[in-house]
Amino acid sequence: MVQGKINEIHGWAAMGPGLNVEPWSYTPRPLGENDIEIKIEYSGICGSDLHTLKEEWGPAIFPAIVGHEIVGKVITKGSKVTEFNEGDTVGVGAQVYSCLQGDCKACSRNLDPHCPKMVATYNSKYADGQPAQGGYAEAVRVDANFAFRIPDNIDPIYAPPLMCAGVTVFAPMLRKGVKKGDRVGIVGIGGLGHLAIQYAHALGAEVVAFSHSPSKRQQCLELGATNFVDTSDKSQVDAVRHTLDYLIITSNSKSSQYAEFISWMAFEGTIVLLAIPEGNMTFAPFDIISTEVSITGSMIGGVIALKRALEFAAENNIRPIIEKYPISKVNEALQHMDQGKARYRIVLTHE
Amino acid sequence: MVQGKINEIHGWAAMGPGLNVEPWSYTPRPLGENDIEIKIEYSGICGSDLHTLKEEWGPAIFPAIVGHEIVGKVITKGSKVTEFNEGDTVGVGAQVYSCLQGDCKACSRNLDPHCPKMVATYNSKYADGQPAQGGYAEAVRVDANFAFRIPDNIDPIYAPPLMCAGVTVFAPMLRKGVKKGDRVGIVGIGGLGHLAIQYAHALGAEVVAFSHSPSKRQQCLELGATNFVDTSDKSQVDAVRHTLDYLIITSNSKSSQYAEFISWMAFEGTIVLLAIPEGNMTFAPFDIISTEVSITGSMIGGVIALKRALEFAAENNIRPIIEKYPISKVNEALQHMDQGKARYRIVLTHE
Repeated sequence: MVQGKINEIHGWAAMGPGLNVEPWSYTPRPLGENDIEIKIEYSGICGSDLHTLKEEWGPAIFPAIVGHEIVGKVITKGSKVTEFNEGDTVGVGAQVYSCLQGDCKACSRNLDPHCPKMVATYNSKYADGQPAQGGYAEAVRVDANFAFRIPDNIDPIYAPPLMCAGVTVFAPMLRKGVKKGDRVGIVGIGGLGHLAIQYAHALGAEVVAFSHSPSKRQQCLELGATNFVDTSDKSQVDAVRHTLDYLIITSNSKSSQYAEFISWMAFEGTIVLLAIPEGNMTFAPFDIISTEVSITGSMIGGVIALKRALEFAAENNIRPIIEKYPISKVNEALQHMDQGKARYRIVLTHE
Repeated sequence: MVQGKINEIHGWAAMGPGLNVEPWSYTPRPLGENDIEIKIEYSGICGSDLHTLKEEWGPAIFPAIVGHEIVGKVITKGSKVTEFNEGDTVGVGAQVYSCLQGDCKACSRNLDPHCPKMVATYNSKYADGQPAQGGYAEAVRVDANFAFRIPDNIDPIYAPPLMCAGVTVFAPMLRKGVKKGDRVGIVGIGGLGHLAIQYAHALGAEVVAFSHSPSKRQQCLELGATNFVDTSDKSQVDAVRHTLDYLIITSNSKSSQYAEFISWMAFEGTIVLLAIPEGNMTFAPFDIISTEVSITGSMIGGVIALKRALEFAAENNIRPIIEKYPISKVNEALQHMDQGKARYRIVLTHE
């Protein structure tokens, strides 16, 4: 076993529920033979970080260093790690472990985020009970299977949002086979949505962006949308009814909106839920029987989807639009994000 | 234009809402050049007939001759009909017209039952305003595109239930590509369910039959189910959780059951709703995000599915289990069906 280089990792942790983090340090788990140690240079802020800190998804494990859009350089590696060398720029997304075995019902389908042994990047525990800590810190140690080389032509500061937001929107497009000529609607133009427009456009789809903020129209068109629909304008919505092959829901929606969403779909269209709506989903069964529309969901992307999301972004010049904050202003950044003001993703710089 | 042979069609019609039909006759529409006239020998009773007569799906058009599982012999044909001759045994299902044009959003996808110009076999009006009348009658005139040759090796008395129940369960299996080795659950072992077991089994699937009537176990196994689950026995249900690739819902279910149904599905499984549940569908969005399960619906099958459903039944010895009633006892038969006593489909004999 190689001893890691940083044996007390300093970061910004929440000590209890709420949007407040403060300096704190922890002793990382021993560096295993399949592990790498990453000196973090950039980390993105994801909506999940805020939900976790506010305990909106249930009790969290405190102290909590959140952040699962991590980019940095390899500074140490275990003896069995062959795919990375010290100095490589790599990213880590929302999971740091799954079994990846062929007899696993999830991993065998490349759905490793659903593996029963999955360990999330934060607010999760390794099999030995140690809590995993995330990216608002100087370093992280992870299994090398859950680190990904950042392609050379992606400036590392733009890479963090691809590690969670990017792959989350791209994974269902890959799985469902979104292709040239399909009409893809994107609901919610934010951290996920502005990347979803780019990925769908690069796949050759006609993209329809839906937002109640008409001020986002020009930017959506620049990102690759064919059409922008102001959802507060009924005539604009009526013009796209029954036309979409896919609808990707990236914003929190209300259960009462599903009948409306179904009415935007072409026959046999597919609605993919990425954001968890408030309360239960409710819709009339006849709405799906009479349209043969499918409603499904997708979690974060798995290992293969994440590699492909990075490569595809490199090949097609897909980049997030970011706001930068030094990590010393992380609390200010969290507030900015919480107020819905981020355009569209925040990256914390660690130097 | 050829004059039809039967210019006043006698049948059994409901004069108003309720499960009561009585002798009545109507003047059929003129026999067009693409039409055939069929002397009806057998007609099936479908749950839709009862829902319509009881106005459970909204106001009905009275007098109403219901019945959309029709089998009989061609007795007259229009000048342009080439695919049938007098004396051919043919069937008619739940639709008697759709445009079948390539520029139709529904017909171009072989979803002709969703065509905006679709005319249902009863409780529906042709473009000229004349009500379509169904199979509880001595004859019917229909566009030859909506009549289907009954394969020689299917005894015509067994054919009516294939015309609606059979194709309704088979169409989504065809569209979704159910194949050898898939695990297919069937909820509700009745008119649709007992055919769904046979179709799925013949496609090579492992079939799991779900029912709260353990008395149906033996018959389900004989029809081809690999496994029978008594839904009132929690241990039996627990044993199949997270294992199904498809779940076909053929019985009326309650909105509260959807969380349970989702828990039976393997990752990325597909739930297909064929029966309309009471009230709205309701489930927690996390249930589909964490499983990537899809929920969709299917209506009756279209022209191509119906041809294939008949051929596939002929090739694989798929036959409904029927109870026979002379049409003179149609009211007794309707009561028997309404009480849930039919095992599993009723066929009215017209002689």
